[in-house]
Amino acid sequence: MSDDYRQMWKELGLDLDAHDALLGVLGQAYQDIYLAQKQRPEGMGYFDFVMSEVHGLRIKELVDEKAAGRKIVGSYCVFVPEEIVLAANATLVGLCSGADFATEDVERMLPRNTCALIKSSFGFKLGKVCPYLESADMIVGENTCDGKKKAYESLAGLVDNLYVMDLPQVKSENGKALLKAEFLRFKAAVEKLTGVTITAERLKDGIQTVNAKRAALHRLSALRKTDPAPVSGLDGLLVNQVFFYDNPARFTASVNKICDELEKRIAAEEGVFAKKTPRILVSGCPQAVPNWKLPMIVETAGAVIVGEESCVGERGTRNLTDDSGQTVEEMLDAIVDRYFQVDCAIFTPNPDRLDHIQQMVAETKADGVIHYGLQFCQPYLMESIPVEKALEDRQIPCLRLETDYSMEDVGQLKTRVEAFVEQLR
Amino acid sequence: MSDDYRQMWKELGLDLDAHDALLGVLGQAYQDIYLAQKQRPEGMGYFDFVMSEVHGLRIKELVDEKAAGRKIVGSYCVFVPEEIVLAANATLVGLCSGADFATEDVERMLPRNTCALIKSSFGFKLGKVCPYLESADMIVGENTCDGKKKAYESLAGLVDNLYVMDLPQVKSENGKALLKAEFLRFKAAVEKLTGVTITAERLKDGIQTVNAKRAALHRLSALRKTDPAPVSGLDGLLVNQVFFYDNPARFTASVNKICDELEKRIAAEEGVFAKKTPRILVSGCPQAVPNWKLPMIVETAGAVIVGEESCVGERGTRNLTDDSGQTVEEMLDAIVDRYFQVDCAIFTPNPDRLDHIQQMVAETKADGVIHYGLQFCQPYLMESIPVEKALEDRQIPCLRLETDYSMEDVGQLKTRVEAFVEQLR
Ligand code: SF4
Ligand code: SF4
Ligand code: SF4
Ligand code: SF4
Repeated sequence: MSDDYRQMWKELGLDLDAHDALLGVLGQAYQDIYLAQKQRPEGMGYFDFVMSEVHGLRIKELVDEKAAGRKIVGSYCVFVPEEIVLAANATLVGLCSGADFATEDVERMLPRNTCALIKSSFGFKLGKVCPYLESADMIVGENTCDGKKKAYESLAGLVDNLYVMDLPQVKSENGKALLKAEFLRFKAAVEKLTGVTITAERLKDGIQTVNAKRAALHRLSALRKTDPAPVSGLDGLLVNQVFFYDNPARFTASVNKICDELEKRIAAEEGVFAKKTPRILVSGCPQAVPNWKLPMIVETAGAVIVGEESCVGERGTRNLTDDSGQTVEEMLDAIVDRYFQVDCAIFTPNPDRLDHIQQMVAETKADGVIHYGLQFCQPYLMESIPVEKALEDRQIPCLRLETDYSMEDVGQLKTRVEAFVEQLR
Repeated sequence: MSDDYRQMWKELGLDLDAHDALLGVLGQAYQDIYLAQKQRPEGMGYFDFVMSEVHGLRIKELVDEKAAGRKIVGSYCVFVPEEIVLAANATLVGLCSGADFATEDVERMLPRNTCALIKSSFGFKLGKVCPYLESADMIVGENTCDGKKKAYESLAGLVDNLYVMDLPQVKSENGKALLKAEFLRFKAAVEKLTGVTITAERLKDGIQTVNAKRAALHRLSALRKTDPAPVSGLDGLLVNQVFFYDNPARFTASVNKICDELEKRIAAEEGVFAKKTPRILVSGCPQAVPNWKLPMIVETAGAVIVGEESCVGERGTRNLTDDSGQTVEEMLDAIVDRYFQVDCAIFTPNPDRLDHIQQMVAETKADGVIHYGLQFCQPYLMESIPVEKALEDRQIPCLRLETDYSMEDVGQLKTRVEAFVEQLR
């Protein structure tokens, strides 16, 4: 790493030694898991570069944006509307962290029985190793699961710029009214942060920029439906992960570029795995960078992942926002409509998610579903039981896994996944 | 048990063998824990009788009420307004269960990492051993914690009369509007169930009946402030537990009767424990019948519990409902105002609870606080960490316990409680 980066990290307040250690582990994991793959599309080179510079060049860009007066907004959930952030001339970055860090310090602040995602977000703050978190001018928490909702009360004592968004629990008229009221309040808060008034023109721009990112991912998802799979699940997940960090326009272009390449592969009937490799849909909790544990296990067990029914995946990107509105009010309604469709397990009841899982199974021609549950995540673990039952009633094999970020259970998971894959052949 | 009861249980659909087993365990536990106490007030005789007839006489009363056309509403949370239920000429009974049952069946429907209260409520249903649940014409679930919220989706498949009430997560204007809308919807549902239209007169009656119950408990709480404690924490908890099951008017009279007796004890400086016995406030998750584990441990460790900051305790009964309104609308607003003050940890933020704990410590002259957390209860376990910190900052010793309904950890808890009590001497 260049000295410039070290200076930048220092100025952001990172703990350089701890940060070096983290980057070391991350780099090694990336090498072992990603670079060890065969027949990767060339276009993945861009994502390899992004990952190698995830704390470097991208942070430099954010720091430069900040120097030019642009604000950075950090988010832990796909309910935070990027359209509004962009329309206020700010940049949204995802903060959901996918690795354990500073666990001892974390467990002084949070119960041991807290999901790995939440613990990780605290660990990255307490360990001072996340340059995104430290760059953010505003951090948005949201009342989703109990774990996050209550954890933000403690996080408020660690950061001085936490903004908490309330969310409904039910998809009722009242629930929608609450979402709208909260998006309006968020709009005002972002406008205040940036000093930029959101006009119809800016908002339309914001919507179109985010829609373009999503549309590129839709294109990628559609290409993953082919057999043989033109791209691995590991790489598919990575693209979905980078969605949260990268410059939107560059991300869109890079995804489209990879899609061009995949189309050629498909025409040539080339794939990363042999034809008839068992195809798996992963459904459940978000898998944030660098949480590549499950796809690594699955794809070294002789199967290929063909889709992610997850917030880092189709749950987060499924729907576009209608951009036909002419006024800010009309477009805000369209944004509310779009986000109100997100089928997170925090909603009760949440029948759309089951429909979407089945729809994805059909479209991706998946042979089975692995439900990925983070330990102590009550919404998804609870929902996984009726989901499994419903899938099996429809003859769709389902494997429910419950895990965390540690590597201790890899052997046991491997055994279960291998047995499941065997059953799909 | 008389043959009449067996016939009644059979007609309610109970599993008689399983139910016998449960009653056997319950009776033995009551004998060992309650009847073994010394210097109990005579007035507790009524509660001993209630407990001995908790599945007998009280159920007979409910069955007779049903035969006379009255409806029974079952509830899992202190957010269900008894005032409205009574005003519609129906009876409210608590369903929160305090013992493990049918654990294997439960764990096929719920994740292992679910709190004991929720598992118990499923166990009592799956094991067919709860005559309250089986008597209920309507069962009210509520969107409080993730665990309950999502579990009701599965419970809906086990009972045919589940009504789910949405609740806010934030004490905002929107939150209050939601509570009001939901109480109005609930009123309509109860009116539909009973065929009774709630008039101002009926509603005032309902409010006054519930207020009288609460006022009797306030009187009891005030008497528990004396040193020596005139009544044990075990008995104090029991009275708070019976609050959820008994006929309201009879309950009120019985509590007031015991208070008359305690006043005499206090005048004579008599207590259940010696003067200067370390005094403990218990704060946290509800302790439902027959969950007497913590007070048993504390009061056999040489301390006395002088109050419960809990839903089975002051959180559930603290505030009266203003009964001065003249119209249904006015009184409904008063009901909303009253319930909106409940400081459950499902709210974020929840600063009132910390204030109340400190207020209770001061009023009860408690020497320390034991935070009672059910394992996997994210709202209370999360909140317990800042609560402990705030109390210790104010020189109030605090012991955070995390447990479930099993007896496996009793030895370990005893050791920790004894050490804590030693520290308070
Ligand atoms: S799983 Fe739910 S709470 Fe978590 S990021 Fe997704 S939408 Fe947000
Ligand atoms: S994985 Fe589950 S518990 Fe963890 S933050 Fe997401 S919804 Fe909450
Ligand atoms: S702790 Fe909260 S959710 Fe549970 S009974 Fe009390 S108010 Fe209801
Ligand atoms: S104890 Fe906690 S997890 Fe259990 S039902 Fe009550 S609030 Fe929910």
